[in-house]
Amino acid sequence: MTHVTRIRRRPWEELNPWENSTLNPSVKPVASVGCGEVVEVETWDAFGGAVKPGQTRQQALERGIKVPSNPVTGPIFIEGAEPGDTLVVEILDIELPERGATTISPGFGGLEGWLNLMTPKTKISEIKDGAVHYVTDKGTTVKVDVDPFIGTIGVSPRSEAINTLTPGTHGGNMDCSDVRPGNRLMLPVYQRGALFGLGDVHAVQGDGEVCGSAIEVPAVVRLRFEVLRGKAIAWPRVESDAEIMTVCSARPLEDAARLAYRELTRWMVEDYGWERDDAYMFLSIAAKARIAQIVDPLYTAVAKLPKKYLKR
Amino acid sequence: MTHVTRIRRRPWEELNPWENSTLNPSVKPVASVGCGEVVEVETWDAFGGAVKPGQTRQQALERGIKVPSNPVTGPIFIEGAEPGDTLVVEILDIELPERGATTISPGFGGLEGWLNLMTPKTKISEIKDGAVHYVTDKGTTVKVDVDPFIGTIGVSPRSEAINTLTPGTHGGNMDCSDVRPGNRLMLPVYQRGALFGLGDVHAVQGDGEVCGSAIEVPAVVRLRFEVLRGKAIAWPRVESDAEIMTVCSARPLEDAARLAYRELTRWMVEDYGWERDDAYMFLSIAAKARIAQIVDPLYTAVAKLPKKYLKR
Amino acid sequence: MTHVTRIRRRPWEELNPWENSTLNPSVKPVASVGCGEVVEVETWDAFGGAVKPGQTRQQALERGIKVPSNPVTGPIFIEGAEPGDTLVVEILDIELPERGATTISPGFGGLEGWLNLMTPKTKISEIKDGAVHYVTDKGTTVKVDVDPFIGTIGVSPRSEAINTLTPGTHGGNMDCSDVRPGNRLMLPVYQRGALFGLGDVHAVQGDGEVCGSAIEVPAVVRLRFEVLRGKAIAWPRVESDAEIMTVCSARPLEDAARLAYRELTRWMVEDYGWERDDAYMFLSIAAKARIAQIVDPLYTAVAKLPKKYLKR
Amino acid sequence: MTHVTRIRRRPWEELNPWENSTLNPSVKPVASVGCGEVVEVETWDAFGGAVKPGQTRQQALERGIKVPSNPVTGPIFIEGAEPGDTLVVEILDIELPERGATTISPGFGGLEGWLNLMTPKTKISEIKDGAVHYVTDKGTTVKVDVDPFIGTIGVSPRSEAINTLTPGTHGGNMDCSDVRPGNRLMLPVYQRGALFGLGDVHAVQGDGEVCGSAIEVPAVVRLRFEVLRGKAIAWPRVESDAEIMTVCSARPLEDAARLAYRELTRWMVEDYGWERDDAYMFLSIAAKARIAQIVDPLYTAVAKLPKKYLKR
Repeated sequence: MTHVTRIRRRPWEELNPWENSTLNPSVKPVASVGCGEVVEVETWDAFGGAVKPGQTRQQALERGIKVPSNPVTGPIFIEGAEPGDTLVVEILDIELPERGATTISPGFGGLEGWLNLMTPKTKISEIKDGAVHYVTDKGTTVKVDVDPFIGTIGVSPRSEAINTLTPGTHGGNMDCSDVRPGNRLMLPVYQRGALFGLGDVHAVQGDGEVCGSAIEVPAVVRLRFEVLRGKAIAWPRVESDAEIMTVCSARPLEDAARLAYRELTRWMVEDYGWERDDAYMFLSIAAKARIAQIVDPLYTAVAKLPKKYLKR
Repeated sequence: MTHVTRIRRRPWEELNPWENSTLNPSVKPVASVGCGEVVEVETWDAFGGAVKPGQTRQQALERGIKVPSNPVTGPIFIEGAEPGDTLVVEILDIELPERGATTISPGFGGLEGWLNLMTPKTKISEIKDGAVHYVTDKGTTVKVDVDPFIGTIGVSPRSEAINTLTPGTHGGNMDCSDVRPGNRLMLPVYQRGALFGLGDVHAVQGDGEVCGSAIEVPAVVRLRFEVLRGKAIAWPRVESDAEIMTVCSARPLEDAARLAYRELTRWMVEDYGWERDDAYMFLSIAAKARIAQIVDPLYTAVAKLPKKYLKR
Repeated sequence: MTHVTRIRRRPWEELNPWENSTLNPSVKPVASVGCGEVVEVETWDAFGGAVKPGQTRQQALERGIKVPSNPVTGPIFIEGAEPGDTLVVEILDIELPERGATTISPGFGGLEGWLNLMTPKTKISEIKDGAVHYVTDKGTTVKVDVDPFIGTIGVSPRSEAINTLTPGTHGGNMDCSDVRPGNRLMLPVYQRGALFGLGDVHAVQGDGEVCGSAIEVPAVVRLRFEVLRGKAIAWPRVESDAEIMTVCSARPLEDAARLAYRELTRWMVEDYGWERDDAYMFLSIAAKARIAQIVDPLYTAVAKLPKKYLKR
Repeated sequence: MTHVTRIRRRPWEELNPWENSTLNPSVKPVASVGCGEVVEVETWDAFGGAVKPGQTRQQALERGIKVPSNPVTGPIFIEGAEPGDTLVVEILDIELPERGATTISPGFGGLEGWLNLMTPKTKISEIKDGAVHYVTDKGTTVKVDVDPFIGTIGVSPRSEAINTLTPGTHGGNMDCSDVRPGNRLMLPVYQRGALFGLGDVHAVQGDGEVCGSAIEVPAVVRLRFEVLRGKAIAWPRVESDAEIMTVCSARPLEDAARLAYRELTRWMVEDYGWERDDAYMFLSIAAKARIAQIVDPLYTAVAKLPKKYLKR
């Protein structure tokens, strides 16, 4: 077996909102990684590890634990990445822990204001035998197969420090379950070295992440990087064996969807030789679309096209 | 073989915007159907048959053909349906013709204003061997498997005449590909006899129906009706062997999604005994969501939950 | 004094949702009026008169009173109006009663879901000496000058029956305080005779009508009609001595604003000879904009330009 | 006359996107100012001075001039301001130059996608005798009275570096014409010293700033600061002699309006002793609302209540 670089997560007592809860061009990289290398990254869950069995997030906070929200491990300097390039992140594997947390917090979530009188709620689910064991309030165990992915993953913006709760052209908190092992995520590069960061792994998530959290876990993620020199993209893209996908974030949600369809049209034109309006028309017949999340400051939609319809 | 009632479509020269392009409590039923009976309904395509091979919609219109948009066959009186009931429509089968039309019209469509300089475009695709044969502008034929469904299907509103281009609580132009053979659509009943109508079959459609049309076809649809007496629902629901689904329409699209998730929560509570906030949390882990369309006056989202997670 | 036609409102026990709570091409006119004639119309308040002093709407409903929402007096047939024309409604005067009602209803209103735990609330305010006497929960009387206008006013749509709660290109429930005495409202004509209706007068209203109701009153409105033959407009317009205004409705609210600015641009081009992009640029320097309401099924924005900047 | 501190703007060749085009906690203050002191601040226009008579922005850019967008002068350290306080900025006076620039840029602006085929356009207007002299494309001069205000004004966010094009709870690019001489702007303080910055003065602007720019000018602004210790506010507020106002930014625009109405409700409760639901109801009768802008990454709405209705 070849050598694998391991990037450890910072002890959570040392987490810092400016350095760990933003993607930010002014923060010093924690590691430098070459293209083609396999890297193992330890990530925090969205609560920075504060929610433990037998203890709600509320209780953690009451004990005086300051939890930066949605911390990322990084920035990681990717050797050879320059502004105007595309960073390709190959997701090789995600190692899950034995349990994950789900919370409802009043004032947050997709149905906030649509369901009345919600009280905060925390649920810890065991993860074993490839499934999340969700125990309902009535005591029934419902098994949901794990389908792990990276919720927050991105690069440093051009000249902003963007909160890790927010998705955008730079990636960030897209909560898109297609960013999963076996797939390749493409991100625009704005800074020398890209200044890449990630966290917020979900063992499994429903489309929309409607209550505001999924099965939130710390994890160990194996990645490999590649840089497409001089290839600029406007928004994150994902490629699986079977599909090309664009991942765009905006409010309202239809704007996220429009951006995603437009990017997909452009991809078909640039890389597969379609006429633009023909591509647009064909998407109306053959595209798939997923609502990734409707709970973050911007909402995320994914548009997809099966590769079987495309020839280079 | 048992007797099957056939409801013919009106010759398109006789189509009338008030009677055929709205769902409308004041229109006299064209047929009366009993529960359990198999009914065969002839439907018009969204263009009322005006777009023919070798002729664009534009040309049809220039020849003085007045085409009511998106005409429905109906109203069909469902015996025994009363306000406050739920109408169940079992979709048995859809018979497709040999070709279907797709159009781009400036001033209409999901990327209107997002892609510049669009010109109108009409494409006729052959349907054979279970696939749509889409010929690209460069002359390549791309085969897309048919996946037919009913684009516009609904009942008369309580006291409005709603254009058949608009979806709502009464159904209408939902353009939801889950309204397909094998599935059961549930609709709220507002009028005695429900006053049901349908049209706008698509041989196949991409999620979002982004250019504003799919593979638009006239068709013959086989249906069977059932009435759930005294069971009231707020929005259309769909049930397949594997999933329960809610289909809601609003602007912006996130409101359609919120409505769909809220209805799904309510369904889990009413029929499957979940606690409300527990249902909400579980959807955040296990729901699926589809963007049905972002081109009609209201946008449509579908939220789904696999039945394997549910026990009555 | 010349003869004035008086159009009486229907006793509210006889109000009918299909005839009085929609603008609807299938309803028989209640009166026919010539251009230039002064007409006096009795209108209902939004609650159809059901809310009385010492009685909440809730109580009215509990007593079995069926109240069609937001009833209009009409349809009034305007002699000489043909599809494609513009109907000009000169608002001469509004006669107010001695009190008006304001209500909060859970499940309705601009901050529904944004303020928690709201309970229904009805307040009756006296109207005297040109002011509404609003008595706060703490017993203080706050006087607000009356500024009466017609909340719901419009014509029959082309081939729909649109609920009187909804605004649109046909007018309807715009809740726009610029539709006041001294101003001229212009509406597109879709039906022979226009089939005009009105109701829902407000003694005064805040921009946005944020809680969902204003000072709701039955009233007597004096109007005079004019028809601009062959002049077609796309959305309602208002003209005062000092300003031209466009009134557009959509969701989200920015779309209503965009429509209103675009219509204003078109008006400057058509009637005042501006270059389109120059008009657009000038509005960015000199337009005013009002949020009319954010509580109805579509939201309404008004864009205005002082006439002092315009020369025919 | 007392001593007045003058804070000079950085030469535009030295402007830096990270330091001048974000509000950012990591940037070293350029000056420190005590409460009660009169301060004179030189500000850049939104184009950093690059657009000059006889030269479009396009041409400036073609000559290799790198223009950070919407640069601010700052950060200014306000002595005594601590996180959790409110910073009060009294706007004493704005000194205008002799001309201002307005531009249309394809891909930007409120009617982008709603008007087709726009070409870029730059207009320089003279400012004299208290009016902007706008020359139409047809050569007519239209005089618009100046009504200067500060378009971009804010403090450093808690732990983000937010682009100066974006408005938010921290202030920023609100483009709200109520931030004018004679009025007091209140901002939440997130950082020690507040780290205040400003720029983007407009000689006059239409509501909505619909084409994306107003009469853009560099200026000299006279201010005085005050700190309300231990008084925390959630969003910017403005007070004039006659009105209290809340300024909130979001997408869609109705969310900005809802936030503004909710903040106004809270203000009435906290400082003027109203019951919450009574305040909500009263705003529905007496509030005013302005669309500040619909062109920046978030849209801005202002809700207002005349002080004559309020007693402390």
